[in-house]
Amino acid sequence: MIDLRSDTVTKPTAAMREAMYRAEVGDDVYKEDPTVRRLEELASQMLGKEDALFVTSGTQGNQIAVLTHCRSGNEVLLEQDSHIFYYEGGAISAFAGVQTRTIPGNKGEMDPRQIELAIRGNDIHEPETGLICVENTHNRAGGAIVSAENMKAIFEVATAHAVPVHLDGARLFNAAVASNCSLKEFTQYTDTVQVCLSKGLGAPIGSIIAGPKEFITSARKWRKRLGGGLRQVGTIAAPGLIALSEMVDRLSEDHHHAKILAEGIGSVNGLEVVNTVDTNIVLVDVSGKKLTSNEFIEKLSDAGVKAVSFGPSVVRFTTHYDVSKQEIEEALTFINSI
Amino acid sequence: MIDLRSDTVTKPTAAMREAMYRAEVGDDVYKEDPTVRRLEELASQMLGKEDALFVTSGTQGNQIAVLTHCRSGNEVLLEQDSHIFYYEGGAISAFAGVQTRTIPGNKGEMDPRQIELAIRGNDIHEPETGLICVENTHNRAGGAIVSAENMKAIFEVATAHAVPVHLDGARLFNAAVASNCSLKEFTQYTDTVQVCLSKGLGAPIGSIIAGPKEFITSARKWRKRLGGGLRQVGTIAAPGLIALSEMVDRLSEDHHHAKILAEGIGSVNGLEVVNTVDTNIVLVDVSGKKLTSNEFIEKLSDAGVKAVSFGPSVVRFTTHYDVSKQEIEEALTFINSI
Amino acid sequence: MIDLRSDTVTKPTAAMREAMYRAEVGDDVYKEDPTVRRLEELASQMLGKEDALFVTSGTQGNQIAVLTHCRSGNEVLLEQDSHIFYYEGGAISAFAGVQTRTIPGNKGEMDPRQIELAIRGNDIHEPETGLICVENTHNRAGGAIVSAENMKAIFEVATAHAVPVHLDGARLFNAAVASNCSLKEFTQYTDTVQVCLSKGLGAPIGSIIAGPKEFITSARKWRKRLGGGLRQVGTIAAPGLIALSEMVDRLSEDHHHAKILAEGIGSVNGLEVVNTVDTNIVLVDVSGKKLTSNEFIEKLSDAGVKAVSFGPSVVRFTTHYDVSKQEIEEALTFINSI
Amino acid sequence: MIDLRSDTVTKPTAAMREAMYRAEVGDDVYKEDPTVRRLEELASQMLGKEDALFVTSGTQGNQIAVLTHCRSGNEVLLEQDSHIFYYEGGAISAFAGVQTRTIPGNKGEMDPRQIELAIRGNDIHEPETGLICVENTHNRAGGAIVSAENMKAIFEVATAHAVPVHLDGARLFNAAVASNCSLKEFTQYTDTVQVCLSKGLGAPIGSIIAGPKEFITSARKWRKRLGGGLRQVGTIAAPGLIALSEMVDRLSEDHHHAKILAEGIGSVNGLEVVNTVDTNIVLVDVSGKKLTSNEFIEKLSDAGVKAVSFGPSVVRFTTHYDVSKQEIEEALTFINSI
Ligand SMILES: [Ca+2]
Ligand SMILES: [Ca+2]
Ligand SMILES: [Ca+2]
Ligand SMILES: [Ca+2]
Ligand SMILES: [Ca+2]
Ligand SMILES: [Ca+2]
Repeated sequence: MIDLRSDTVTKPTAAMREAMYRAEVGDDVYKEDPTVRRLEELASQMLGKEDALFVTSGTQGNQIAVLTHCRSGNEVLLEQDSHIFYYEGGAISAFAGVQTRTIPGNKGEMDPRQIELAIRGNDIHEPETGLICVENTHNRAGGAIVSAENMKAIFEVATAHAVPVHLDGARLFNAAVASNCSLKEFTQYTDTVQVCLSKGLGAPIGSIIAGPKEFITSARKWRKRLGGGLRQVGTIAAPGLIALSEMVDRLSEDHHHAKILAEGIGSVNGLEVVNTVDTNIVLVDVSGKKLTSNEFIEKLSDAGVKAVSFGPSVVRFTTHYDVSKQEIEEALTFINSI
Repeated sequence: MIDLRSDTVTKPTAAMREAMYRAEVGDDVYKEDPTVRRLEELASQMLGKEDALFVTSGTQGNQIAVLTHCRSGNEVLLEQDSHIFYYEGGAISAFAGVQTRTIPGNKGEMDPRQIELAIRGNDIHEPETGLICVENTHNRAGGAIVSAENMKAIFEVATAHAVPVHLDGARLFNAAVASNCSLKEFTQYTDTVQVCLSKGLGAPIGSIIAGPKEFITSARKWRKRLGGGLRQVGTIAAPGLIALSEMVDRLSEDHHHAKILAEGIGSVNGLEVVNTVDTNIVLVDVSGKKLTSNEFIEKLSDAGVKAVSFGPSVVRFTTHYDVSKQEIEEALTFINSI
Repeated sequence: MIDLRSDTVTKPTAAMREAMYRAEVGDDVYKEDPTVRRLEELASQMLGKEDALFVTSGTQGNQIAVLTHCRSGNEVLLEQDSHIFYYEGGAISAFAGVQTRTIPGNKGEMDPRQIELAIRGNDIHEPETGLICVENTHNRAGGAIVSAENMKAIFEVATAHAVPVHLDGARLFNAAVASNCSLKEFTQYTDTVQVCLSKGLGAPIGSIIAGPKEFITSARKWRKRLGGGLRQVGTIAAPGLIALSEMVDRLSEDHHHAKILAEGIGSVNGLEVVNTVDTNIVLVDVSGKKLTSNEFIEKLSDAGVKAVSFGPSVVRFTTHYDVSKQEIEEALTFINSI
Repeated sequence: MIDLRSDTVTKPTAAMREAMYRAEVGDDVYKEDPTVRRLEELASQMLGKEDALFVTSGTQGNQIAVLTHCRSGNEVLLEQDSHIFYYEGGAISAFAGVQTRTIPGNKGEMDPRQIELAIRGNDIHEPETGLICVENTHNRAGGAIVSAENMKAIFEVATAHAVPVHLDGARLFNAAVASNCSLKEFTQYTDTVQVCLSKGLGAPIGSIIAGPKEFITSARKWRKRLGGGLRQVGTIAAPGLIALSEMVDRLSEDHHHAKILAEGIGSVNGLEVVNTVDTNIVLVDVSGKKLTSNEFIEKLSDAGVKAVSFGPSVVRFTTHYDVSKQEIEEALTFINSI
């Protein structure tokens, strides 16, 4: 089975398993796990932030950011197809008590002027704008890279209105590698950032949030409330260290594979690639095949390839470490056969 | 001063003051106030619902509806310029813990197909759709009437997906009078409804929510939590009874005045009426005057007419009982002079 | 029927009805109601605070105080039988997201040392102590006066730990009159305070919260979210003004009546007054009559006297303006007959 | 350094590290991780519940239980020194919006009659009692075992009032081993239960919640919102399996060590053991030494033994797998030297 559902399905590498086996550990609730501290320090350096914190998932990192930046009665501006809005179970309203105000994006990029218009004033009828969230790469826009220019323009608007910015950078490594630049090129334009270790980088579990020291201190407490204060966390931080130090550059292979996949699919009658393939995601409209996305996925699964639905007629393919170039070509053969 | 800011500025009539003076009262927390019970019964009949409850404001009525229909972690679908989303301080997220998902409207009407697409499925990543809110007339769309047809189509989608519908009918009386039909023509297509007594109907304070008996029982408790459980509430229910029984039909005058105002403004250079004037609201784009809405309002106020800003270049005028036809004509003279 | 259930059942006096009839009103959401402003100014003076705000009920005032002082994740210290904890539907946890930590009182007074021990430290496992609430007079302790000395000691502990204090003074007027001192004697030892106009003072509706200017500005917004932003509120503020200016001193009559009632009941076989009757409340243990409180109340109601249950074997009687000395004596006769 | 601060400091055994290394994994968000499924099945069998769910911590398990059982506006009854109330950052109020009502325990056991009195009725002023939480063993009561008889009596009261019961069984294994009975002896008297794998059982990370199938389905979604939906979770579930299958019985050693420690401390002048040592926790009053708990702990730490403060004059020692009998004896020597 060639699993192109998500880069989350990556399994830990042999080196990661070895690292888990040998991990030096301590009780992280007492801040005594040396491995997770090394991971947090490396992450804060790579992300250009004062401090960083290990969390168990991207959702947890994003939720902590909202809980720390905002208070109940605030409003959060975010892209209308963003993960925080679309895929986190409405948790930011359930837990942080904030209202979501969505901005339509163009390939994941929000228009800074629309953001400025959406920032609330001082009226007694209106919630206070507490946070702006950017997602990069943007999942539902097909792994689209939000340019540093766009992030800069949004950050300037935000700063002018004293509203903080949080970056959901679950796949920020993909953006940086595909743009051939450092993470800081992007993170300089955000107050806080969340990055995932368990997607393209292949770690079994975990994400990082980074930001100012004071933010991380408060975030640590919200993490505890969410049940993310763990004990001998070095066991999962150890593969995270490998993810950060050894697995970033190779993402370019995944991007190359996605381009091969997109080209191949583009030449199939009845299938249309609907995103610019910036990174490792290919979105395909299957309606030309007279099939719904779910019907298409089922046939594909029978043929030995897994993908996920991204709407009634759109299917998402995601390339990652566990799928080789040869498997991409096999997948294309199967796709062709439907 | 001719006050066209809002129909909320209406002051109680002499008959209402007389009614307050004579009101038979009791302690409504013990359900012993006969006047408020009469008001609630009359309202439930007019609205075609099993039961009704007096609340202190439209915002309170809407909040109670959301708290009663939903639970934390749910998502609410509502028009992107609706009062509940725009003007209630983000309270539905702060108090009920629900996420707002906005649908763009056309003159206040949401497309039932867009609503259907926005209703969430069973995925573990997604909040459950807990409520659909309709606003009629739609304030920010310029007092636009949402047709019974549109409400019916939305209600059918909602019912098919077992999602309840709440109607923010703060100005539903205007919709009914302007459509020359009964309130029930609209309320048959909603599970619960909120109507305001203190806008066009001229009561000093109060709104009504109506719905199934069980809903009202639960709503009564949420009202208590919000601090809306009052004592000798007959004092303000008495003018509410007059509002419901004597003040509805005369709203046609306000609508007539709004049309006069809109026609007059339409012939002024540099001003453009931007809404279809269905009821008592006129939205005017003042950018042709090279003025922002706030600059225009200030000049107008100096001249003796009050209005409110509805965005950087749009001004809202609202007609009501306390502004006579002659005052409308005076207002036009002042507007002309800017 | 002699209604001794609560002082909330007081009905507006003739002067209050007259005041409603003549009230000068405006739209208070625009801060243009002159009568409510007069009421708020008088209240802030009497309470010795910078500013004050009219709210629709004691519950609403208390909820606003918690929402304004605290943020979600905080803990509030309050007496274990206090109104905010016992009778407000768990609203402070539902709306403000705060945890309640109760302290047992002695006749309504909490031990300042116990409060100090309960204030949380800096540990990552613990909520931050966000507020201490005092209730005076204390309802479930039988209208017990919390002494200024006790309030001072609590305030000092609170201030030393930078925790604000809120006073639920729903019946603070009773405490002041019975202590023969001004309200400020008590309110000097609290940051914010809520007082009810609709209990012993006889107004039909309403309470006041008072505190620093900045607190009131923020409170006004939370009031709006709760649906307590009203329109022509002068209609109910007018009787409130009479309540504050004309009805306070006469509370001594109610206290006198309560003492007569308590003495009379004390001499009945099988009945025992279980509270020190500081003000207008008498708590009676009826178990000597081999009756539950509810059985006793039912018999009493048949005889023409109303009271409420305060636990399985305790009945509460509350004296107020609408019950004369003669009616107290009649009530005693009925009580004797059971 | 002999670390007696907590049994959470236990480090994974060699077998656990080996298990991590070899763990068969999959993406658990897609329910495809075979190891975590094996763990959940074994746990549900041992706990006698229909289904079980892996969570990242005891706090997360407890929070999920409250979020699943309750809705905002409910009240939860729990022991006044319980972990959920004392050590979870007020999270159940912040996230689930429930009010905490505490019951004083006797060695961790709540009086079922007090619980029955605390269950709320149908009054509009009162929150609905949504859940009763029991903690076994009870941490702050010194690892006290709550007897199955007490749990049964509480469960019967709860069931009679249709209120569910949740057991915070972070150290339930200790209770079972010390009582020489199965876990089911206790869990038969609760609807849902949380047990920790990372305390005495030595797993690096994780807890289990168990209950009815429908409960677990809903719990899974709340876990996702809290950020506890992980990917290749088999890596940490593998040591959890060893914890459950190989590490339970040996807890009797820890209990034996605690008894040795308690006896030794009991004979030291100025130190007093203040708990009945049911399991692996010893609480010591150090005030006879004219030291605060923190001063005592610092001296002890200099001598090579770690413990934690449990109040101004009480110190907690916890025995566990990583402290041998010989180390206990060394610790006693150090303690004697202070
Ligand atoms: Ca992975
Ligand atoms: Ca492969
Ligand atoms: Ca009005
Ligand atoms: Ca009254
Ligand atoms: Ca009378
Ligand atoms: Ca451990």
